[in-house]
Amino acid sequence: MSSPEQMSDGDIDQATETAQTYLEELEDAMRREDAAAAAEMFCAESYWRDLVAFTWNIKTVENPSGVEDMLEETLAHIGPSGFELTEPAEEEDGIITAWFTFETEVGRGEGVVRLKDGGAWTFLTALTELKGHEEPKGRDRPIGAEPVADPDRKTWTERREEELENLGYTEQPHTVIVGGGQGGIALGARLRQLGVPTIIVEKNDRPGDSWRNRYKGLALHDPVWYDHLPYIKFPDNWPVFSPKDKLGDWLEMYTRVMELNYWSKTEATSAQYDEETGTWEVEVNRDGEELVLRPQELVMATGMSGKPNVPDLSGEERFSGEVHHSSEHPGPEGYEDKSVVVVGSNNSAHDICEGLWEVGADVTMVQRSSTHVLKTDSLLEHALGDLYSERAVENGIDTHRADMIFASLPYRIMNEFQKPIYDTVREIDADFYEALEDAGFMIDFGPDESGLFMKYLRRGSGYYIDTGASQLIIDGEVAVARGQVTEFTEDAILLEDGTELPADLVVYATGYGSMNGWVAGLMDEETARQAGKVWGLGSDTPKDPGPWEGEQRNMWKPTQVEQLWFHGGNLHQSRHYSLYLALQLKARYEEIPTPVYGRQEVHHEGI
Amino acid sequence: MSSPEQMSDGDIDQATETAQTYLEELEDAMRREDAAAAAEMFCAESYWRDLVAFTWNIKTVENPSGVEDMLEETLAHIGPSGFELTEPAEEEDGIITAWFTFETEVGRGEGVVRLKDGGAWTFLTALTELKGHEEPKGRDRPIGAEPVADPDRKTWTERREEELENLGYTEQPHTVIVGGGQGGIALGARLRQLGVPTIIVEKNDRPGDSWRNRYKGLALHDPVWYDHLPYIKFPDNWPVFSPKDKLGDWLEMYTRVMELNYWSKTEATSAQYDEETGTWEVEVNRDGEELVLRPQELVMATGMSGKPNVPDLSGEERFSGEVHHSSEHPGPEGYEDKSVVVVGSNNSAHDICEGLWEVGADVTMVQRSSTHVLKTDSLLEHALGDLYSERAVENGIDTHRADMIFASLPYRIMNEFQKPIYDTVREIDADFYEALEDAGFMIDFGPDESGLFMKYLRRGSGYYIDTGASQLIIDGEVAVARGQVTEFTEDAILLEDGTELPADLVVYATGYGSMNGWVAGLMDEETARQAGKVWGLGSDTPKDPGPWEGEQRNMWKPTQVEQLWFHGGNLHQSRHYSLYLALQLKARYEEIPTPVYGRQEVHHEGI
Repeated sequence: MSSPEQMSDGDIDQATETAQTYLEELEDAMRREDAAAAAEMFCAESYWRDLVAFTWNIKTVENPSGVEDMLEETLAHIGPSGFELTEPAEEEDGIITAWFTFETEVGRGEGVVRLKDGGAWTFLTALTELKGHEEPKGRDRPIGAEPVADPDRKTWTERREEELENLGYTEQPHTVIVGGGQGGIALGARLRQLGVPTIIVEKNDRPGDSWRNRYKGLALHDPVWYDHLPYIKFPDNWPVFSPKDKLGDWLEMYTRVMELNYWSKTEATSAQYDEETGTWEVEVNRDGEELVLRPQELVMATGMSGKPNVPDLSGEERFSGEVHHSSEHPGPEGYEDKSVVVVGSNNSAHDICEGLWEVGADVTMVQRSSTHVLKTDSLLEHALGDLYSERAVENGIDTHRADMIFASLPYRIMNEFQKPIYDTVREIDADFYEALEDAGFMIDFGPDESGLFMKYLRRGSGYYIDTGASQLIIDGEVAVARGQVTEFTEDAILLEDGTELPADLVVYATGYGSMNGWVAGLMDEETARQAGKVWGLGSDTPKDPGPWEGEQRNMWKPTQVEQLWFHGGNLHQSRHYSLYLALQLKARYEEIPTPVYGRQEVHHEGI
Repeated sequence: MSSPEQMSDGDIDQATETAQTYLEELEDAMRREDAAAAAEMFCAESYWRDLVAFTWNIKTVENPSGVEDMLEETLAHIGPSGFELTEPAEEEDGIITAWFTFETEVGRGEGVVRLKDGGAWTFLTALTELKGHEEPKGRDRPIGAEPVADPDRKTWTERREEELENLGYTEQPHTVIVGGGQGGIALGARLRQLGVPTIIVEKNDRPGDSWRNRYKGLALHDPVWYDHLPYIKFPDNWPVFSPKDKLGDWLEMYTRVMELNYWSKTEATSAQYDEETGTWEVEVNRDGEELVLRPQELVMATGMSGKPNVPDLSGEERFSGEVHHSSEHPGPEGYEDKSVVVVGSNNSAHDICEGLWEVGADVTMVQRSSTHVLKTDSLLEHALGDLYSERAVENGIDTHRADMIFASLPYRIMNEFQKPIYDTVREIDADFYEALEDAGFMIDFGPDESGLFMKYLRRGSGYYIDTGASQLIIDGEVAVARGQVTEFTEDAILLEDGTELPADLVVYATGYGSMNGWVAGLMDEETARQAGKVWGLGSDTPKDPGPWEGEQRNMWKPTQVEQLWFHGGNLHQSRHYSLYLALQLKARYEEIPTPVYGRQEVHHEGI
């Protein structure tokens, strides 16, 4: 990449000049608060995705009409200015891509624009920091120890010990994060750096236990380049797929060195909003001690999956075997000579089948609907390789740049960007897919053939990243049965077509409900319904009902319940979107006005 | 920096062409094994510093005669080739500086050359890796979890648990490192990545305790940019001067996530070399359990300072107060209303005086000889700023590049590079130095006015990086007495001139002996004398007796005791030189021949 200095030497190419002129004119229209003129600079089909900079929301508006409405509502108080390219623009297939920075009244931001026929086709604006509230880093990092004698000085350790003693007792946190997995930890780290007093509440004994406590063969299915946390990257020798205990140790150490206020062995038992004080009353049990926290803001980071889905089958009381949900599966030990039926055919189902087969169990997987399967190699090379890989790093695409590129693709058309990848994969791995189908396994590539990420973003389920179980299915080592499970007999589980599957153990790898289920548990059903379904884009595809929302429902942005937030997702999302949620919380902590444009409505109250 | 691709486009400048031609001709002479011809390409005054690549040693040879001798002895088996510039050369003040890579029969290396009048003035060659034994990182990182089902597979955790159970019991480590501070940890991390079975033995309870156990006000006097460990850098928000407990936590975290075999609560009680088996017998007490480790290689990483120097004064038995060495100083608490005499005037003495003054003690510092004092700001800006600072990072000088630049300056003439820095500092901080002298404090800038680093490299003492105590001395808040201490009375300590300093507590901040003192303790005096003095360059300046050695005596390189090594130094040295020591140990582990050129002789047997 060239530096901006290199750009000012008169050697500016056509694409760069076009982009520069475009931004100047757009800024000019916005300075005049002429929303209509600015909107006219967008293509008939266009997408402006804003991450907190203009909308105090995570929001995509579409086409000139959407842009105009958004700008009408926001220009007067946002005051955007200072749009500047950060590197030369690039042109490919008639599309000019340009990276830029800008300012608003209260913050600084960065963005990416794609120009087509002189207008903006996609436009991303993302808030980076709040003026006067920048993170203390680089040249502004803390000194650590003042080089001056002072009888009243407190050491770093003394100040930290005071904080640990007081926060939650004599001083109330501004934010409480319920759940201390990677999501809560990443957000907690950002808030710590932003100086927002925060407590993370986690029921397990140690940070990382949410991973350690799972079955022993578990490793991340996403590769290391996709999984970095903010601030401290995994080292160069870190394995491609983090084994669960190793990831657990990393999270524990991260929590320590980032000095998070992490309350382990602590369970949030209830939460109510106190209208009078404008704070939450969060009752927690901290290792036996009952106390009430009174934060302004409450973040649910309990895992983007909600509570386990467990089918309600008749006859379970007479079944002599064992039944548990995948979240409770202890691993294959103890089931060496057992007959096991695993209900479900996504990641967990496959992992559990593979582990059971490895110890010698007799395993049948019940596939209720088709599954998108992706070989690990194809995930690394085709699905992620351009953005998250050693190749990407060598091409100058570091984690931040990859995150920004990914964020700059509007969800509405992301499937179009994704489809060609899976067309390639289907061809390259044709033999593999054919063999799976020959073994009776139903394959899909998503309702519009758009593959893994769209399934993840729309429904968070419906796929398997193959780490070995597919070959077992192909070889008949793991049997596949198709259909819905209907009832138990004394020693078997029955399918709707009457097939009887003898079982000593039945594992429900049947997924999870929506995250607002946790709200129902912690607060009440009314609040859960008021917040509505969490996750999904509203694509009107299976398990992602419309209407179109255009962003992940309720994630990282204001909900219909004031001062209640949802945070989570995979490691990539926890890393990137924790910044935008942290900035929203920081603004509220500093009492910076945050008028929300286009707050999402609730269309699905189900829990 | 431009990339090599940019260099091949015909746009090569004169300096780059000169450097390229120089390297080609030098390589050609070496390929012909014509040591004389190669030596002729060096200036009459010149320095070739080799870090393990040619000499299997850390060695600087001087002038054409030194180069010729070294090449005569090494060319035939080293087989250097493939010298290539990695970026365009740069010319300044008639000196062309060029960065390059090269190969040997067994390894790959990197280097920096400075050309003057067509010949090499300084030449650095440093081994980077051994062919076929590269660290598994980047594209070659471990997979973490194989994507294939296998009944015999072991998880990462299971393999790690087996290692922890077996190493030191059913399997012997190749290397034992005695001492688990930052030095042992950095070396251990490198050896772990190189696949050399290693155990680190540390008497404290936890990694980092060597820092935690010191007095509470302690923070690193070197700034964060200078202090990174290999593999995982401190994050951008890390304080400039690491407070001791925070550094302790970082070291503990690092030890865990780098999966070092770190035996805490373990003391090495004796070590003998077993001629028959060619291994060491190291007796250790591991938390009460006595056992014998039998490594090939034994590394002393007990701190570059040896055992505490304690003056032997008459009358101590009648002194009614308390006496301890600075290494045992618990901090100021409990001495609030006491009279304290601190003997010594270097870093520890000042820190201890400052802490005692802060709690209200009556403090006198006894200065026995002059001290080099450097203000923190001047250290950051002038002494380190070009290489280790945010400014350096912004200029593209990352830690590795800074380390290589620093390593490329031959010790013989490093004082000439350093002197101008301190000429500047003396001028800028003139008022400060004058005020200190007015307060009766004796200042120096080193015997040749070359300042802090030369003092550190030559003797490891004689300086104070001012973190506040100097102002106390200037203000008379901490009294200064000058001269040698001679004896105790019942309630005071006496100076040679008869001055009586009443004291409830006397702290000896009198430094440490040579590191081979640890050898005397662990093995025997004979072995300690055979190894000889550790540290110092042989500059024939105070506390660094000649003859000239040209490298730090006995550090990170073969000693006169086979299979015995010394490792340590500040965080910068622990980071950088751990690579070269690790490669020497790895080569021995893999039984790659390692003929040592110019093994250092012993001139000082003192312990």
